[in-house]
Amino acid sequence: MESFPDITPVERPLVEAIEILDPSWLVGFVDGEGCFHVEIFKSIASKTGYAVNLRLKIAQGIRDSHLMNNLVKYLGCGAIREDSHNNAVNFSVTKFKDIYQIIMPFFDKYPLKGSKGLEYADFCKVADLMKEKAHLTDEGLEQIWVIKLGMNRGRDHD
Amino acid sequence: MESFPDITPVERPLVEAIEILDPSWLVGFVDGEGCFHVEIFKSIASKTGYAVNLRLKIAQGIRDSHLMNNLVKYLGCGAIREDSHNNAVNFSVTKFKDIYQIIMPFFDKYPLKGSKGLEYADFCKVADLMKEKAHLTDEGLEQIWVIKLGMNRGRDHD
Repeated sequence: MESFPDITPVERPLVEAIEILDPSWLVGFVDGEGCFHVEIFKSIASKTGYAVNLRLKIAQGIRDSHLMNNLVKYLGCGAIREDSHNNAVNFSVTKFKDIYQIIMPFFDKYPLKGSKGLEYADFCKVADLMKEKAHLTDEGLEQIWVIKLGMNRGRDHD
Repeated sequence: MESFPDITPVERPLVEAIEILDPSWLVGFVDGEGCFHVEIFKSIASKTGYAVNLRLKIAQGIRDSHLMNNLVKYLGCGAIREDSHNNAVNFSVTKFKDIYQIIMPFFDKYPLKGSKGLEYADFCKVADLMKEKAHLTDEGLEQIWVIKLGMNRGRDHD
């Protein structure tokens, strides 16, 4: 159909009107597109040589900037970063306090329905270890590393 | 961290327990991961030389097979196909009757919140044209082609 003549796409505005979000919608959205990450990276500031970071990330096309900003308002945490290279917008929550006091209570009250719930459970285990400062010790870091290895892609290869 | 010694991922079962789905969850799930496709392909059986097919597709990792099968039960339509090459499972609705009598009434009652609502609106325009058999004429096919060009990736380049 590449040769179909004289047709150009119609022009459409960006999406502006966003309805009020609700918990079930957000659970479905995160089941579909969210990702719970445990990030471990080298850090000279840490006694173990490594630092641990938790991240809830949701990526969408750039047209959903408005929706993603509404997510920040709805949850009262997180930040939006536009990724113009990929024509995408990323919502991330990385502050430990926000994860522990907002994200975890939310998903404890409104559970995920898909296998993302397994990622979330592991994510919480790491958060609990971090709450106890275990990530600052070699033993705790090793525990976190074991949990991380089983998450996301690692899980598919059990 | 590749050299962290003697650590193997913990073993976990596939996800089995799925809670009852609800409309808001499904809207969020489709906002996150669903795709409304208008497919136009060559067909010697058609007077215009082309056939038109509508498809709602949702892809997830293979671990969510159970959840995706629940989607079929919940909606009362659609089919699951495992894509072992990509370690994924695809839910698709392609029967016109199911799209027109189940999928469209559902999303008319429970609107999408993100830019996927724009895709859905275009998808419905094509469905309405097909309902009137317009896709069997050159003029109708051209109308559908114009709509299709503005959807999904085409939309991002308006």
